[in-house]
This record gives sequence, C-alpha cells and structure tokens, in this order.
Amino acid sequence: MPSPKKARRPQRARPMNAFYAQSGGVSAVINASAAGVIETAMRSKHIRNVLAGRHGIVGALTEDLIDVSKESRATIKGLRYTPAGAFGSARYKLKDINQDRAKYERLIEVFKAHNIGYFFYNGGNDSMDTANKVAQLGEQMVYHITCIGVPKTVDNDLPHTDCCPGFGSVAKYVAVSTREAALDVASMARTSTKVFVLEVMGRHTGWIAAAGGLAGQSSNDAPQIILFPEIAFDKPRFLARVKDSVERNGYCVVVVSEGAADADGTFLADAGTKDAFGHTQLGGVGPVVANMVREAHGYKYHWAVADYLQRAARHIASKTDVLQAYAMGKAAVELALAGHNAVMPTIVRQSSKPYKWTIGRVALAEVANKEKKVPRNFITADGFGITAKCRTYLEPLIVGEDYPPYKNGLPQYVTIKGVAVPKKLKTGFRP
Amino acid sequence: MPSPKKARRPQRARPMNAFYAQSGGVSAVINASAAGVIETAMRSKHIRNVLAGRHGIVGALTEDLIDVSKESRATIKGLRYTPAGAFGSARYKLKDINQDRAKYERLIEVFKAHNIGYFFYNGGNDSMDTANKVAQLGEQMVYHITCIGVPKTVDNDLPHTDCCPGFGSVAKYVAVSTREAALDVASMARTSTKVFVLEVMGRHTGWIAAAGGLAGQSSNDAPQIILFPEIAFDKPRFLARVKDSVERNGYCVVVVSEGAADADGTFLADAGTKDAFGHTQLGGVGPVVANMVREAHGYKYHWAVADYLQRAARHIASKTDVLQAYAMGKAAVELALAGHNAVMPTIVRQSSKPYKWTIGRVALAEVANKEKKVPRNFITADGFGITAKCRTYLEPLIVGEDYPPYKNGLPQYVTIKGVAVPKKLKTGFRP
Repeated sequence: MPSPKKARRPQRARPMNAFYAQSGGVSAVINASAAGVIETAMRSKHIRNVLAGRHGIVGALTEDLIDVSKESRATIKGLRYTPAGAFGSARYKLKDINQDRAKYERLIEVFKAHNIGYFFYNGGNDSMDTANKVAQLGEQMVYHITCIGVPKTVDNDLPHTDCCPGFGSVAKYVAVSTREAALDVASMARTSTKVFVLEVMGRHTGWIAAAGGLAGQSSNDAPQIILFPEIAFDKPRFLARVKDSVERNGYCVVVVSEGAADADGTFLADAGTKDAFGHTQLGGVGPVVANMVREAHGYKYHWAVADYLQRAARHIASKTDVLQAYAMGKAAVELALAGHNAVMPTIVRQSSKPYKWTIGRVALAEVANKEKKVPRNFITADGFGITAKCRTYLEPLIVGEDYPPYKNGLPQYVTIKGVAVPKKLKTGFRP
Repeated sequence: MPSPKKARRPQRARPMNAFYAQSGGVSAVINASAAGVIETAMRSKHIRNVLAGRHGIVGALTEDLIDVSKESRATIKGLRYTPAGAFGSARYKLKDINQDRAKYERLIEVFKAHNIGYFFYNGGNDSMDTANKVAQLGEQMVYHITCIGVPKTVDNDLPHTDCCPGFGSVAKYVAVSTREAALDVASMARTSTKVFVLEVMGRHTGWIAAAGGLAGQSSNDAPQIILFPEIAFDKPRFLARVKDSVERNGYCVVVVSEGAADADGTFLADAGTKDAFGHTQLGGVGPVVANMVREAHGYKYHWAVADYLQRAARHIASKTDVLQAYAMGKAAVELALAGHNAVMPTIVRQSSKPYKWTIGRVALAEVANKEKKVPRNFITADGFGITAKCRTYLEPLIVGEDYPPYKNGLPQYVTIKGVAVPKKLKTGFRP
C-alpha cells in the first residue's frame, strides 16, 4: 500500500477534514463504526477534524455539519455501546449523476468550502453507490475527494463481505428472542396458544429470518418453520407443516421474514406504501400468516412484530458484531490514509471453527446496488429451515455479549452535543 | 408464627409431599419462584418430595405429576435463570365449587392418593381463587391441604402486594426497548419514520405501558405518549398530541397498552376471540393506532408488537424481580411449614429511596379475582404520561441485571427431565 505521505494528490499535502455520514436504516452497532472512524481519524495527523452530517447526506447538502471535535472523548467512546444513529441518519437516495447532478455538485461545493478531503459513508448498497458517484464526480470537477464506504446493514445483503456489521446483533436478538418465546409457547400449548409467529426484518433476503433458526438445535426444536423471501410461499404446504408440528410437538413456532412472498413475487403483506428509495414498505406479514393458521386449523395463536426493537437492541448486541463494526470504521480511515479511493473494507472469513477473520477491501462499484441473498444450500430441502452449512456460517456472528453500562436499571446510552460547524456558503439547499 | 412441629393437623405428624403448579401466562421469572419453592421444600424434613403438575392444575386433574426429586440440582438451580414455565403452565379456570365440584373433588382425590399435604399455586388472581377454594373444600372433605399462593403476573395487577414477580422484568424489557427504539426513530425522523408505536401487554391495567415511561427523563423525551387502559382513549386529543410531538421533537414514540379502550370500554383492537378464562383475547392495537396517525397526518410510521417476547425476555430480566420471585417461592413454603393456610406471601415496600422491602402475607380470599389498576395520580393530568410518584414506584423494580449464562452466543436455559410419578388412581379424568 502506498504511504499516505507519498499521496499523488495535492490536497494530501496538508491535513484536510473528513466527513462522516450515516445512511439508511440504523443498527445496534452503526455508532461503533462511527467511533472507529472518529477515533482513528482523530489520531492521524493527516486528518484535521471530523465533520459529521446531521442526518447523513442531508446534512452535507444543507451544510448542516456537526463539529465532532466538540464532543468529549467519553461521548465518542460511548458511541461504541450506543444503538441507532447518533448523528442522525437519512433515507435519501441520490440518483444517477445525470439526473441528480445539482445535488452531487452541491456536495462537492460543501466539501470544498469545509476543506473536506475524505468522505466516509456508513451505509448499505444504495449508499455505496452514492459514495462511488461522489468519487467519480470529484474527479470530473477536479476536486479530489477520497470516498470510502463503511459497510452497515442489518439485512446482511452486501456482497463481497462475509457478513455486514449490524447483522450479527439483529441475528442474536432474533435467535435469543425466538428461543425465549418458544419456551413460553411450549409452556402454554396444552391449554392455550399453540402457534406463535414472529415477524422479522429482511425485505428481500432471509438472513435475519435464518438467524431465528439458531434458537433450536434439532429439527423438532423451535422454530419449526422459517419463511424466507428466497423461497416462494406455498400456503397448503405451510399449513400442513404447522399442523404436523402441533401434532408432533404440541406447538409450532414460525419465524417469518417481512419479505416472504408468493411464487409470483407478491409480498404476503404489502402495506402499499413506498419509502424514499422506492422500496415497498412492509409490515404486517406476521398477523397475516397467523390468521391463515387460525382460519385453516383454528389453533389459538399469538404473533409478534419485532420491527425497530430488533435492530436497536444494543442491550443484547453480539460482541463479534460490535468488534467488526468498530474495525470497519477504523479500516475505512486506514484505507483512505493509505491512498485508496472508492473502496469499502470487507470482512473476510478465514475459518469458521475456530472463527477467524481478516479485513479485505472491495471497489464500491462492485458493491453498489447489489444484494446477496441466502444461498439455496443454506436452506433445507423443504424450504422451512436452515442447513448445517448455514448454521456454521451464522453461529460465530452472534458469539459474545457486550453489555452497555446500566444505571437505575436502564442502559446509559450517550447523546452527542452536536455543535454545528459555522456555515461558509451563501446559498442554501432544499434537499 | 406457630412452629410447624406444633401443627394442629394429624397429617403434619409425618412428612407429606408438596404439589407445585404453574398457572396462567408465564413470565421471565416464574421458574425462579419454582426454584424458591423446590429448594426450600427439599431442605425441609417436613416435606418428603415435591411433585409438580405437568401443565399446571391440568397435571393434577389428570394425575400427570412430575417427580421433582428426579431433576438434578443443577437443573433446579438453572430454573432461576430460565424463562417461561418449565413444568408447563395452563390457562384452566375452575369455577365455583358448586359448578365445578367434580373437579375440586378430583383434585383432593389425587392429592390424597399421592400423600400431598401442601399445594403451592404459582399464578395470578384467578389462581389464588382456585387455591382458596381447594383449601375450603379440603376442610369440607376432611382432608387437610395447606394451600399457599405464589404470586405471579406480568400485569402487576394483584392487590395487597406492592408489586408482583414477573412485572419487574417485563417493565425493564419495555423501558429498555422503548429507549432503544426511540433512539432509532430519532435518528431516522428527518427523512423517514416520524411515529413509532409499541404495543405492550396489559389487558385491563396499564402497569406495563407505564413502565415504558421510564425510558425518558423529561416530558419531551420518548415515549411522548402512553395510552393506558385506565384512561378513556380520546382520538382527537391523541392525534393533536402526536402532531405536537412531531412538530416539537421531530418524531413521536407511542407506547400503547393492548387494553387501551374508548370511553364506553370498547377495546381499540378487539380480536373478537376469548381465552379459556373468558377474557377477550387482544392483539393488534399497535397497528390500529399507527393507522389512525397515518390517516390523520400522513406521517410515515412503524409499529411493533412485543407480545410474548416481552414476558419471556429473561436475557434482560430485572435482578430485583428475580430476587423477589425466588423469595416469594421460598416464603410460600415457609408460611406453609409455619402452619398458615390459604394465604399468599406479599412484597411490602418499606422505602423507595433506598429501595427496601420485606415479606408480608395476605389471605387468598382478599386477593382472589381482584385487579389493582394504575392509580390516577400515577398518570399525568393529560393522561398521556407517568407522574413522579409513578416513577418513584416503578424505578426500583427494574434495577439490576441478572444475565443468564451464554454459550455460542445463546442463553443456556435448562429443561426438566420431567419424570412422571407412577399413577395410583384407577380412574382417569378428562379436564
């Protein structure tokens, strides 16, 4: 790797500021990545200060930047155990440069005004696409901006990385919650609830639903059924399996992905609304599936929809995930300082047992707008469970507890002061 | 208290067996009470063995008894950190003695056959009623059976006890989850979700919803709105408050009790089905409320329904709750051995700051079928929040963490062997 001192770009001759932004749905550990970026950047003499976007890229467009140097060391350290997006995140997608040229140019204008030479974008597929385009446009506009992605998505659907920070913790939450709820249902099944349905996130990929499978050890253990977006929903087969489980075990626990869909791709529950990225907004497949069971079999049922609880549940975060989230933030800065551009650090698995991983990198262009689905050989032949191969993949990702500090029974999460950097541009921007 | 050696009853002359049963909805700590009963009983020379009902009272009626002496010490110890009902619980209500005489007589018959002199019933209001009636019928049938209640209900609605084991842990879960989800919503609100609704349990009382209030410190903190069953739902006022919070804070977090109801007592979401006790089975008020917000204001919203996850969440149990659950089980046995009958141990608060409590007792007749609601002065004048008085009451109940042991990222909960006691009666019983 080239030494940062031998950087080819004139901007590198003097220390520049770094811009950090959180993007898309937040997670239990995205702030751990922020801590990794900030602590590493602050230690480097090549980076003067870290400015964070208030509400992500929207903060850059509106020149609403947070002066991170005004935060105490304790606050930055506390980000490691604080869930959600401490600087504010945004669901705000920039389209192609041709379509959204004014926005990209505005970004460059703001970066220039604030002497920003590094852009660390902490997000998922869409964000990697944006970061890549900013890097391209910077070249066109003769303003070199080093754009490094910091991977984040609870969905675990980023390609070219073995897993993605945010996923391990939601996986642990879902596995633990499924195990606990299953004990509850088993207790009550003789005279009460026989079927329990847990709806989990995962718009197009079943990674989170698959993690529910870790709750059990054998095929009779709960969850007896997992419904993946990758497997076309077959109602008669599903209902027969529910009946079989109730007759065999006395109860049935179902983990259903919000993205579960029919053979023609129709989501089982489609709220009919779309988010800022044009994705259909889901929620409600849990009750839909539970209702099918009631109508067909008359079993007493309960359902839960974990929704934001699952991705915000820092109290039960995976230690592995926290470490990886921090490491990705740190590696992003190191890649930037080593002269890389338009890349993202990745997690490379060396072995599963014992679990060993190293840090690699991939070009943003390779990651942008691609989705990694659960491979067919991770799902049992009947489509309702996870295979040993999947288990081997998932298990190390939820290992280890990393409890936040508590006071009076509640976790003591930090909040930033969020001191604004004085604006330098005369023009505003309506994002 | 009279010494057990001076017992007035002839049955007490020789050691008899104890019967332990779990009843109604389970909790994160009902097994801790079981451990308290079992370990205390096993240490007494006045109790020969503990027999547990498989699926509660149904196990007694069907003579399906579990020989607890066949469980290892490690398993009994592990009950302390294992959620749900390890012996199986039941929603099975016995009616008046006149209506259900055959069942009560069957119970006495089974108790007699298995030399059972003590009945420890671990449940809520309905169960205390049943235990009380068994004690009465025993007298009528000249078979003395010592009936002691062990309080359990996540709803915290038992009268004559300051709080009830099971509640502190669900309260902690709801407070922690609300705090975490609120951070998530605050992160995203600028461009995405502005209103988040968390539905929690509490059929007729708002204790669990009130616990959500612990997530915030000041009136602007989340949750900005709590909907209690005790306060008639006023849609226009609710919607105005949501709008106010979004305009003031950028977002709004609502914690709604499943029992939230209109002024005429109609549940906001009534699934229309009834459970074994004849209570209406609820679920779905979360989406109903979220939908109201969308229709009125068009805000993007998310909702979660915690359902069984909240009461099974042993991973985030309150240490105070675990200690009290165990203490209630232990005290129940001690009361029995001291010659008491038809009573339940209670938690008596001596002071809130510092939190000090002692163990009292109350006659089952005083507890049976009564509900303790959240007092009006625990709810703010506007009906949407908790007062300082409520906070002072709730805070000590969630204090302390009591993590279960983990292996490979998952809590290692115990399961019983559940060896059946050989049947002695020739007649069966269809419960």
